[in-house]
Amino acid sequence: MRKVIFDTDPGIDDAMALLFLKRAHGVEIVGVTSSFGNGTIETTTRNALYLCELFGIDAPVAEGSASPLAGAARSPADHVHGSNGLGDIAMPEVPRNALYEKTADAFIVDMAHRFPHQITLVAVAPMTNLASALRRDPSIAGLIKEVIVMGGAFGFHGHSGNVSPVAEANISSDPQAADELFGAAWPLTIVGLDVTQETIMPAETIARLAQHGGPEGRFIRDIARFYLDFHKDSEGMDAMFVHDSSAVAYLLDPSLFTVRRGPIRVVCDGIAVGQTIQKPDRKKTTPPAWRDRPSQTVCVGVDAQRLLDLYYRTVAGT
Amino acid sequence: MRKVIFDTDPGIDDAMALLFLKRAHGVEIVGVTSSFGNGTIETTTRNALYLCELFGIDAPVAEGSASPLAGAARSPADHVHGSNGLGDIAMPEVPRNALYEKTADAFIVDMAHRFPHQITLVAVAPMTNLASALRRDPSIAGLIKEVIVMGGAFGFHGHSGNVSPVAEANISSDPQAADELFGAAWPLTIVGLDVTQETIMPAETIARLAQHGGPEGRFIRDIARFYLDFHKDSEGMDAMFVHDSSAVAYLLDPSLFTVRRGPIRVVCDGIAVGQTIQKPDRKKTTPPAWRDRPSQTVCVGVDAQRLLDLYYRTVAGT
Repeated sequence: MRKVIFDTDPGIDDAMALLFLKRAHGVEIVGVTSSFGNGTIETTTRNALYLCELFGIDAPVAEGSASPLAGAARSPADHVHGSNGLGDIAMPEVPRNALYEKTADAFIVDMAHRFPHQITLVAVAPMTNLASALRRDPSIAGLIKEVIVMGGAFGFHGHSGNVSPVAEANISSDPQAADELFGAAWPLTIVGLDVTQETIMPAETIARLAQHGGPEGRFIRDIARFYLDFHKDSEGMDAMFVHDSSAVAYLLDPSLFTVRRGPIRVVCDGIAVGQTIQKPDRKKTTPPAWRDRPSQTVCVGVDAQRLLDLYYRTVAGT
Repeated sequence: MRKVIFDTDPGIDDAMALLFLKRAHGVEIVGVTSSFGNGTIETTTRNALYLCELFGIDAPVAEGSASPLAGAARSPADHVHGSNGLGDIAMPEVPRNALYEKTADAFIVDMAHRFPHQITLVAVAPMTNLASALRRDPSIAGLIKEVIVMGGAFGFHGHSGNVSPVAEANISSDPQAADELFGAAWPLTIVGLDVTQETIMPAETIARLAQHGGPEGRFIRDIARFYLDFHKDSEGMDAMFVHDSSAVAYLLDPSLFTVRRGPIRVVCDGIAVGQTIQKPDRKKTTPPAWRDRPSQTVCVGVDAQRLLDLYYRTVAGT
């Protein structure tokens, strides 16, 4: 069983990814950590608690950061995920007393030591919690098995940014945290817009999930309505990009992706703020900013149809 | 006849582009302006004078900038073009008294006024001379017919930089000048690595040019030897990228290229310094840094074989 901590800012596609993770074979969710991002930390923590109860995930939910390492949190993406983060569906009161007693970063550090070389971090929110954990205890870089990040964009297939011409939302929300994360000596893979915007789930798949995926399938349909409307308005398509679930897909079957290796930096200020830049290992010359940084993995291609099939089969249980 | 000023830092591929321009139908070279870049300003000015004499170009050569708008000139690219900028072939003394009496920027301003709406600037060096001309007289933006720039990289086809993971040499040599140039309200097209690194001229073509292109064809073969060695060493190919000649090809036949429109900014400091970033017109949201900037044209695709054929036919005169 792969032990996974899911770092998340739910978020409609976060919810879809969490259900994917829950229903995947060979995965044990050992914790869920919340982050500001798609909503405020109050919203995303509430949603994380709600989703865990709804999906029957019996794991601690630890509350994470309300803002980036430096500066203020960006405005919640209400136009993408709704003002409650889950497509403005009706939701019950969710008691906060179910929360884990420590913060997300402390929880990650604890788990890294309790299960050395066994924990995979699947991070689909701003990178603040993971960077805070690293600052708290740099030794976890040697104790975590693998980090899989949804975030960033490297220009492949024309995908270079969704909040600026060169910046993706998760990275842009805390560029400093991302830069520290990518510089740590743990095996890290980035699943960015280069592949998530190549993987497009038709509205029809969501409708089929509602028919064959049980109550959770119907829940996904209900929350996805808002997200599909956003995609129709912004992209003119009756479909959605598969962002967060692509990180889970990498965990389950990395052979879905082609990759490029090399050290990665994040631009932390100026007009390119939030941009992720890799120096490919195959290029001989390494500019100073990329020197002495570990080579990390970037997904640059994806078998989109096979990924969509994996999602459907896993979530619908067929 | 298209009146052209060729702004250049010869440079082996500059020489190849200048011969292309000279032999093209319907083009009148009204001046050549030199810039620091591939060599020091002394080297590139000497080479510009020499090439004009050798190719029978009867136009003024005006000396341009020795360094960028701010800071010091980058080191000459001796490993690419040889220490004399022309593949270390033997060269005669070239008297500087043939030089035009004014500087390159003053010459450009004069010509813009003398031939309003008739001058095309083909710029294949750092952008300093053109930016200086604009600073000297901003009204030239309304008098120049068209600007065609070899420089920059936008990530298409995986081409994002040749001096850093995101920066191309001409732009990186004077990012401030490029940013001012791209912000001026003249029609400007960028022919960057996205297309120049997609257009690869085999060594065999150079050999054929030596057979069929007269003394100038043999001269190209002689200087190209060094450039081909560089490409063999750095790219493992017996061929060369077609950088500067691609800007001339755009002048002669824009239908060789597919393009994307939108305002362009250049990163002027930090790890992404020298990066060119376009906000595509088709994307609705415009971040502040791209607002109130004119929409310009970026070449994103090229019919490479047709471009190579055009070069060969034009230069060999077949």
